[in-house]
Amino acid sequence: MATVTVRNGVDVQALLETIDAIKAKPELASFTFRASTAWNDGTHSTARIGSFLHAGTEDESRTAGFTLQGDEPPVLLGRNLGPNAVELLLASLGFCYSVGYVANAAARGIELEEMEYELEGDIDLRNFLGISDEERPGFTEIRACARVKARGATEAELKELCSYVQETSPVRDVLANGVPVATSIEVIQ
Amino acid sequence: MATVTVRNGVDVQALLETIDAIKAKPELASFTFRASTAWNDGTHSTARIGSFLHAGTEDESRTAGFTLQGDEPPVLLGRNLGPNAVELLLASLGFCYSVGYVANAAARGIELEEMEYELEGDIDLRNFLGISDEERPGFTEIRACARVKARGATEAELKELCSYVQETSPVRDVLANGVPVATSIEVIQ
Repeated sequence: MATVTVRNGVDVQALLETIDAIKAKPELASFTFRASTAWNDGTHSTARIGSFLHAGTEDESRTAGFTLQGDEPPVLLGRNLGPNAVELLLASLGFCYSVGYVANAAARGIELEEMEYELEGDIDLRNFLGISDEERPGFTEIRACARVKARGATEAELKELCSYVQETSPVRDVLANGVPVATSIEVIQ
Repeated sequence: MATVTVRNGVDVQALLETIDAIKAKPELASFTFRASTAWNDGTHSTARIGSFLHAGTEDESRTAGFTLQGDEPPVLLGRNLGPNAVELLLASLGFCYSVGYVANAAARGIELEEMEYELEGDIDLRNFLGISDEERPGFTEIRACARVKARGATEAELKELCSYVQETSPVRDVLANGVPVATSIEVIQ
């Protein structure tokens, strides 16, 4: 009988089976994720996230999908109907780090009690606003700080895990190292 | 008396005044945005986004702030309690492009009728799952497709604007060109 071990809310047995399945059939590691945004008015858009492609097959596990609002604060001419794009980017990094930390801690036998990330990024909007092109459009630096509490793990173990998660984080990878972004447009008549 | 021109829901007069104010006092273009994530259970975390620093001063316009759920689908050991981190990253790019397109269209006198972005990204999770380090952890490519309808603008004008927005988009900039990400950890006893 298989031993089912759930640690940090992660089914470690299922995680190990997933890893074994991918080792046997590497294409199971291949995903195409998607999002769409529809403009409402002014700086306010709505994003929808639903199915994705997994090893060439649609994953239909999300019956309703997810809806997110994006907007700017009044100082950037919006009405605060949602966070703005760069704030969402920071949240994305925190979510990514968190999944990586929690799952890897589970696999290593570390029981977490608390796990938080605080993220911030500095930006100069002169380029975005067309005032000057001497500054880059995006963040000049992003800082992420983990706050972790775990019974039975040493400080050294928790720090080493933080470094490992940083090196294997999908979001941190594209932010730190860049990724090709192909942008096209279809004009509707 | 000032002429107030709202186009695409953007107060063009306020936009021009913002630009003039920044030209006179460049530090007004300086922002530090923030997000935090708190782990709930398994792959599920909650992000909070609230105040930010604008020219050294806290912007307190968001009385309640925003809350977002992040999770993984069952195939990645989650319960679909929210989109995952890389999907949120795609949504962030769509929101960023959308704000840029709508605001710049307004400034150029282009009235938009529809503005959507579809975004997708390919990823191989073998690195993230610790199976192999031959693949990068993150997206190998991101594709963004705008769909735009605008009365009174030519196809050439709308395409040129898409290129301009791409070049000045904060999120596209950090994705395409990379950004320093400093990650630290605080261990709670």
